[in-house]
Amino acid sequence: MIIGFDADDTLWHNEDGFQASQREFEALLAEWGDADTIEDRLFEIEMRNMPRYGYGVKAHTLSMIETAIAVSDGQANAALIAGIIDMGHALLDRPVELLDGVVEVLDELANLTLMLITKGDLYHQLARIDASGLKERFWQTEVVAHKDVATYRRVLGLHGVEPERFVMVGNSLPSDVLPVMALGGRAVHVPYHVTWSHEQHTGDHDAPVIESLSDLPALLTDWSIR
Amino acid sequence: MIIGFDADDTLWHNEDGFQASQREFEALLAEWGDADTIEDRLFEIEMRNMPRYGYGVKAHTLSMIETAIAVSDGQANAALIAGIIDMGHALLDRPVELLDGVVEVLDELANLTLMLITKGDLYHQLARIDASGLKERFWQTEVVAHKDVATYRRVLGLHGVEPERFVMVGNSLPSDVLPVMALGGRAVHVPYHVTWSHEQHTGDHDAPVIESLSDLPALLTDWSIR
Repeated sequence: MIIGFDADDTLWHNEDGFQASQREFEALLAEWGDADTIEDRLFEIEMRNMPRYGYGVKAHTLSMIETAIAVSDGQANAALIAGIIDMGHALLDRPVELLDGVVEVLDELANLTLMLITKGDLYHQLARIDASGLKERFWQTEVVAHKDVATYRRVLGLHGVEPERFVMVGNSLPSDVLPVMALGGRAVHVPYHVTWSHEQHTGDHDAPVIESLSDLPALLTDWSIR
Repeated sequence: MIIGFDADDTLWHNEDGFQASQREFEALLAEWGDADTIEDRLFEIEMRNMPRYGYGVKAHTLSMIETAIAVSDGQANAALIAGIIDMGHALLDRPVELLDGVVEVLDELANLTLMLITKGDLYHQLARIDASGLKERFWQTEVVAHKDVATYRRVLGLHGVEPERFVMVGNSLPSDVLPVMALGGRAVHVPYHVTWSHEQHTGDHDAPVIESLSDLPALLTDWSIR
């Protein structure tokens, strides 16, 4: 069996940084709208830019700048825009902070074959993987643009992994759980304490949900995988 | 034998669009400096941001915004910044324009195993590959963050290609030619009519240089590869 791990918000913190940055962004634009208005406008602009930009901090930064210009009706000045660029740099430079228990769980599963499959900006994701210190624990690490059925099929095929021999572990239902189950693999849902609006999903699924990655070894034992 | 192709400026035009955009950028900032001053400042800021941003249009757009704020000493207004964001969108939305003769050459080499190995922003490169209409001609397509020896070793290994059985074809000496030769593979240099300063290289090498991709089939025949 091969165990696949998502990275952002599964192995290390991510979304909390985006949300803190969003609060800062709302404060920066407070004279032109309340937090909800600014948040809605940013989300709308991010979704409109998604097909063009994809995911990641650079996309997010450009959408924040566009939002600042839009909500201020062109009044945002260079100092404010420079502040947004600095917020983007801070998100990119943020140290990798592992979730509690991650190292212990990976230690415990060291005799299994582990993959890391993460979605987003290629450069930033590779930098995060390097900075995590976890790279050598994984047989393969893959940065993908989308986590859909076609991508999992391609990535698993590339490494000769049959879906029946694959378990994906992650915090996102639409990205980590549903496509892998659709392909005939197994999945484990480990919710993170906050979820980006774009990744929120309320559909039914019968994947097990665990509260923390620390519960994964026992679950794999139940499944006779270890 | 496996033939690898670079994409930007080897199969389709790319750098000419960046250079046209740069002329537009210089015109936009003309009141704060001459073209050379602005070009130098942009290049300096792009290189400083490179480890953080990597390659691609989003990175370039953010660096243009930062440059505009710097050279204007904070006088660049929201309309100007919005214009830069639009320039980025135009670069991302630009249709894929194949270089002359590309389709005919790929037709002629259709009985060989072809790979596409391109460097840059994951989302934009995948969109370009899709839009090119060429994807099905390649056995494998890979988007990588860097084209260095380690990356070629990883990608070739992943697909079971020995360097001795690999020829890389591309317009960049440091990205397409030198690392593949260092690995024991062969390379063919097809210069594009303009080269980004960052990819300029004056080192020695003994890879054949061809004027156009249309000369590739004859060269491969000389090498008894087809």
